[in-house]
Amino acid sequence: MARPAKLARSKPTRQLILNAAETIFAELGFSTARLEDVAQAVGLKRSSIVHYFKSKQDLYDAVEADIFAALEAETRSRTATTADAWGLLFQVVDSWLDFMVARPAAARITQRISADIAPRLSNPVEFSESTLVTIEAALREGQASGEFRTVRSSHVVNILGGSILHYVCNARELGTDRAYRPNDPVELEAFRSLLHETARALLEVREQAG
Amino acid sequence: MARPAKLARSKPTRQLILNAAETIFAELGFSTARLEDVAQAVGLKRSSIVHYFKSKQDLYDAVEADIFAALEAETRSRTATTADAWGLLFQVVDSWLDFMVARPAAARITQRISADIAPRLSNPVEFSESTLVTIEAALREGQASGEFRTVRSSHVVNILGGSILHYVCNARELGTDRAYRPNDPVELEAFRSLLHETARALLEVREQAG
Repeated sequence: MARPAKLARSKPTRQLILNAAETIFAELGFSTARLEDVAQAVGLKRSSIVHYFKSKQDLYDAVEADIFAALEAETRSRTATTADAWGLLFQVVDSWLDFMVARPAAARITQRISADIAPRLSNPVEFSESTLVTIEAALREGQASGEFRTVRSSHVVNILGGSILHYVCNARELGTDRAYRPNDPVELEAFRSLLHETARALLEVREQAG
Repeated sequence: MARPAKLARSKPTRQLILNAAETIFAELGFSTARLEDVAQAVGLKRSSIVHYFKSKQDLYDAVEADIFAALEAETRSRTATTADAWGLLFQVVDSWLDFMVARPAAARITQRISADIAPRLSNPVEFSESTLVTIEAALREGQASGEFRTVRSSHVVNILGGSILHYVCNARELGTDRAYRPNDPVELEAFRSLLHETARALLEVREQAG
């Protein structure tokens, strides 16, 4: 059996495969996507893909890990110098929004994870845990200082995260008359403004419950 | 070739098939689900399913049509006697929330439609159009009376709809420590209250932009 030509486990090739896989998993979903599709997209043989990722599950896991690592890096870079609770919260929300708008395939994959009954039976947040911990810490900080009222963080995540993912994923799913470009600056800033107002409504301290 | 025994196109059987198909499409997605899975779930042969729905696509379309027809009927029954704009809006939002909480398979299917690049190339809103038209009419009414400010209805749909779908679909996807039951009355009313506050933040008239 001929061995494939020695291929360096070079970071660029691995990253090229990951990028192609992200698009293909986003378009087809996990069960329909095949390693052959990814190989074809990057101009490699299936055997070369397997050199980097031993199975489709392995590749999918690497894609999901890459998405959430990049999202977390983006959030951290933006929040490093932010001191106050509201500023921190808006930076977290903006980092989620801008990340998903710039990377719609990642948005579709995240949306699919939510739609799936049990994408990762053992631990559904194996890769997204740090993202959740970051916003939970921001919420706790604002609650500790009395700037935020106490609401369940999962509700905040579902409302803000669900809104962002639908904004990105639904751009052409609401019919041609309602189609928009999520990365159109005017559209994006209008949505961002509504998202900030939503965050404010969820967390600002009320005189009494409405 | 033996013809299958004559089967009345009885509504109960058709509805049983639809209900089973909704669960199976929600769990597996369109491409992975098979007519055989649906047949097995209702204790019929595949040929009996084909008697009612000639293909998987035909069955899927009927499921999607059934979901949006039921959602629209629920919304209409609640809004029939509501006169004012805010009351109408909250009734629409509540009908969406209660429908999806009671029918989580429908929520997963709707979430998947959003995740898919182009679930229905010719017309992505073939079945959901009336749902969109209903909330758009409610928004226009409030804007015409000066009770709502003017915001893009697609943003409102993405924020309120995305929040509801994530609330229902993410119940076990945020990790065991964050798991909740969407139909738990305390949980549901807490979320509903946040959802109403979100709707209010999106649409209430502001002195000036925040």
